[in-house]
Amino acid sequence: MRVGFIGTGAMGRPMVKNLLAKGHAVTAYDAASAALAEAVALGAARAGSAAEAAKTADIVITMLPSSSHVERAYLQSGGVLEGVAAGRLCVDMSTIDPAVSRRVAQAVSQRGARFLDAPVSGGVGGAENATLAIMVGGDARDLDEARPVLSAIGANIIHVGAVGSGEVAKLCNNLIAGVAAVAVSEAFRIAEGFGVDPKILTDVIAKSSGNTWVMGNMHPVPGLVPTAASNRDYAPGFTTDLMAKDLGLAVNAARELRVPVVVAPAAQQVLRLASSHGLGRRDFSAVYLFLKPSSDDAPV
Amino acid sequence: MRVGFIGTGAMGRPMVKNLLAKGHAVTAYDAASAALAEAVALGAARAGSAAEAAKTADIVITMLPSSSHVERAYLQSGGVLEGVAAGRLCVDMSTIDPAVSRRVAQAVSQRGARFLDAPVSGGVGGAENATLAIMVGGDARDLDEARPVLSAIGANIIHVGAVGSGEVAKLCNNLIAGVAAVAVSEAFRIAEGFGVDPKILTDVIAKSSGNTWVMGNMHPVPGLVPTAASNRDYAPGFTTDLMAKDLGLAVNAARELRVPVVVAPAAQQVLRLASSHGLGRRDFSAVYLFLKPSSDDAPV
Amino acid sequence: MRVGFIGTGAMGRPMVKNLLAKGHAVTAYDAASAALAEAVALGAARAGSAAEAAKTADIVITMLPSSSHVERAYLQSGGVLEGVAAGRLCVDMSTIDPAVSRRVAQAVSQRGARFLDAPVSGGVGGAENATLAIMVGGDARDLDEARPVLSAIGANIIHVGAVGSGEVAKLCNNLIAGVAAVAVSEAFRIAEGFGVDPKILTDVIAKSSGNTWVMGNMHPVPGLVPTAASNRDYAPGFTTDLMAKDLGLAVNAARELRVPVVVAPAAQQVLRLASSHGLGRRDFSAVYLFLKPSSDDAPV
Amino acid sequence: MRVGFIGTGAMGRPMVKNLLAKGHAVTAYDAASAALAEAVALGAARAGSAAEAAKTADIVITMLPSSSHVERAYLQSGGVLEGVAAGRLCVDMSTIDPAVSRRVAQAVSQRGARFLDAPVSGGVGGAENATLAIMVGGDARDLDEARPVLSAIGANIIHVGAVGSGEVAKLCNNLIAGVAAVAVSEAFRIAEGFGVDPKILTDVIAKSSGNTWVMGNMHPVPGLVPTAASNRDYAPGFTTDLMAKDLGLAVNAARELRVPVVVAPAAQQVLRLASSHGLGRRDFSAVYLFLKPSSDDAPV
Repeated sequence: MRVGFIGTGAMGRPMVKNLLAKGHAVTAYDAASAALAEAVALGAARAGSAAEAAKTADIVITMLPSSSHVERAYLQSGGVLEGVAAGRLCVDMSTIDPAVSRRVAQAVSQRGARFLDAPVSGGVGGAENATLAIMVGGDARDLDEARPVLSAIGANIIHVGAVGSGEVAKLCNNLIAGVAAVAVSEAFRIAEGFGVDPKILTDVIAKSSGNTWVMGNMHPVPGLVPTAASNRDYAPGFTTDLMAKDLGLAVNAARELRVPVVVAPAAQQVLRLASSHGLGRRDFSAVYLFLKPSSDDAPV
Repeated sequence: MRVGFIGTGAMGRPMVKNLLAKGHAVTAYDAASAALAEAVALGAARAGSAAEAAKTADIVITMLPSSSHVERAYLQSGGVLEGVAAGRLCVDMSTIDPAVSRRVAQAVSQRGARFLDAPVSGGVGGAENATLAIMVGGDARDLDEARPVLSAIGANIIHVGAVGSGEVAKLCNNLIAGVAAVAVSEAFRIAEGFGVDPKILTDVIAKSSGNTWVMGNMHPVPGLVPTAASNRDYAPGFTTDLMAKDLGLAVNAARELRVPVVVAPAAQQVLRLASSHGLGRRDFSAVYLFLKPSSDDAPV
Repeated sequence: MRVGFIGTGAMGRPMVKNLLAKGHAVTAYDAASAALAEAVALGAARAGSAAEAAKTADIVITMLPSSSHVERAYLQSGGVLEGVAAGRLCVDMSTIDPAVSRRVAQAVSQRGARFLDAPVSGGVGGAENATLAIMVGGDARDLDEARPVLSAIGANIIHVGAVGSGEVAKLCNNLIAGVAAVAVSEAFRIAEGFGVDPKILTDVIAKSSGNTWVMGNMHPVPGLVPTAASNRDYAPGFTTDLMAKDLGLAVNAARELRVPVVVAPAAQQVLRLASSHGLGRRDFSAVYLFLKPSSDDAPV
Repeated sequence: MRVGFIGTGAMGRPMVKNLLAKGHAVTAYDAASAALAEAVALGAARAGSAAEAAKTADIVITMLPSSSHVERAYLQSGGVLEGVAAGRLCVDMSTIDPAVSRRVAQAVSQRGARFLDAPVSGGVGGAENATLAIMVGGDARDLDEARPVLSAIGANIIHVGAVGSGEVAKLCNNLIAGVAAVAVSEAFRIAEGFGVDPKILTDVIAKSSGNTWVMGNMHPVPGLVPTAASNRDYAPGFTTDLMAKDLGLAVNAARELRVPVVVAPAAQQVLRLASSHGLGRRDFSAVYLFLKPSSDDAPV
């Protein structure tokens, strides 16, 4: 298929590579000329704007860093809406506010085109290996149409529900994972203070009500779980900065829905603090490092 | 064996029953005469004080509601330390501050006796069925000595480490479980606000990084997981009050260790608030009910 | 002056009344026809759209409930930007996200007009008595131009800085006031638990480092400070819902600025919870009611 | 009067000096021999234990770093209770858990002596200048008896109520001050992100509902208020570590009272984190430094 691809940064570039490898024709655009040049070097055609990338495409893919980038890429002068032909399909794979997905979907629809939100998980590694999980919101038939393209990019494609639902699923999953990483870190810091063996504690909790994916697969304490980033000096994985972003999107969504949330903002802010203090580009399980105790002579 | 059993309340009573059923001789004491009368009705001998219950016992078991109850039961006039013979073994099965376990252990040791902390999980149901999990801190040989008695009470006996480690393991596990219950509730309230199907979301998260024991076994949203208390109007299970207590113990332990904790106190306080507002005796997953959205006309 | 007034709800209506009383000619618009009818009944001319209200005005005033209302009122089809003449001045008196103020200001500027943000404090009472405090962001000469109109509405006009600064000042002030109300409530609940006389405690704190405007003027505990809403069953004053909104705007602004904030989101969420549980339309000092202790038999 | 003084550390030493200067005879004890030697060098008689310091005293003063130090100093073998004569008065000036004050008071009373809790504010500087504020809990006649001694140490003596009330007043005041310091820091970090002049913002808030003692006297942003520690590189004043301790005592008291508290633990933990990250011995207003934004390229 002819793919218009907008956003060829760290995540977008390997996706373009995989699309090309599967025989799709890609016309790429990125506001940053260096990022665009890399996509062109891989074999993509160069577009001068999002509109131009969208113009002749069977399917438009956007992969951008934030809600406001997505709004601009679709709605601004020179944006996708100016270029996309009626009846075509747009797939936004960015992780953004689900309410923005819905607003953009409405604008796309008014233009006579269709829209899916399809955020991914799996990080740059998953993008390179085409093993991303893709959570999709929108019409099931639109997803069927997109499937050949999405299959070139990811391995596990899940239809969650109406437009916005892909984003909601990703944010809700990451809310729990992000909070769990902080909770597991707190628990093991306390155990450490009492001199309890973290290996034995891990075994105990694994069979009990505190068991979580995070502990079993991304244990914040080094040396306990082979897959964990903590064993590689917290090389991501999924960065503290990206987890803080996703928790922030979830908290903001809750605000707009008038839903009270308590542990999500607490976890968001401790990750934001960890980022301010130098851990932003390490794996989010590095929050364990941040939660170190005060020195022994601090009053209690 | 001859068991001195102190604390025959809601948890202690079925434990006494199971000890008697396995042929152990129980001498019971409780400061509340009604609770003591129930143990006597089951077949226990009545003691007039903790000291008297301890005096002729091969093993002393205490099962009390709080750190200060345990301190008083051991250390006060008429307490275990006055009665227990040198060389005997005391097993505290209460859920309390691990630092208190260590202080009491030291006092027991100065008296020439030995001490294990051995808090349980599984609730009143587990106590009745003798299926409690028992997390034990102290000397491994002492645990071997206690094992015949503990086997009459619980099904899964785990040696965690030195004295206090049983308490630490229980509090750390419950810290994670309590926080997870709040996080899962927040995530599903957000999803609900967007109209996403909770069944599909549960399936998505179950295969992803947000997976937790709480979601899989005690889902706060009714109708999704058969074992969940939410399907039975949040009948416990493990009450909001007890989870608030355990989170409070964990947070206080962190304070005394100078360990910073962020999501644990946030979860503690939302459970405490839920308790203030009528949910204290429901299962802790009922925090989902408490996190209901404001009415639609609240400004955003 | 000829004033185009958009947003004639609970706050806007008395402002229109005061403008008319001072001899200004008002052309009004509100999306809700009932609200518009009330303004017309006061003597305003009726406009069919925001654009029409703006068309012949010397100055346009907007007074709307949220960021998205303001964006729509200015930018959508039929909005202020369609009607306002080049060179004219727009004054947004809504309490909204300062980043939105700046985006709207830029759009107004591109259209050749000028923009001030000028949120108010003092509530419906202040609007009725024309005693509002008005915090203004934008060009000082533009404020001079607006002053005759603003003087008809409020008593204390403060120029804070560039566009958006009025909003920032209001949100920052309310962040502190909202957090302080929760902190004062927590402190007095603790004192109450110990049986300490709240009058004496108030006197002690008033002379010490814990002194705050909230305690001195809006004491959450009834019977201590004559001006306090707590003496009138927490009749607002400034509602819990509006304080939750302002704290939410502040927290969201912090998120977009990458500023870590910890007590602001904690206060935001407890107010949001208080709103969910029936206190949304009472004064924000009613959070004291919400923070009631659990019953005496809850385990500790 | 003959004063038995126990705890001659950083705070106790200048208090001993001032007592001697006013003609009181001091017999001193400290578990740390270096601290005791300093008191002796000032002119105090040396005691070999707390009991010995108490034995011949008209009044016993204790000034110790934590609840457990106070419990040990009174109740342990060699403690005050062993030495103090019936009818004498004990004054504990430590900042500790009010529940511990009450337990100790009860033990003192059973011994036939009397007890006041009398924590101070004003720090080492106030101790040196004898300008401490002293908040007293206990019997008013006992306070009258203690007044000649307390007047040698502090300038402002306030009778709050029954035993424990002095501690409650101090903790409640510091709860509000500590939370306010974090709130003011958050507000000014947000304003900074928007480029708003902090001087103007300070003026605006000083006249509005966000006004607090902390902003007016201990402004976290340097250069705005002459008295502020922020102008002296956050030299204390009152350290982050001590404020974290007091917030922790308040939060723990709330736990034991079953009072829900939300902003106090959030503030406690951010101060604890600031301590872990090197700010423990700076003034508590240095939390402003800790709340610095993430770098500009962190995703939002």
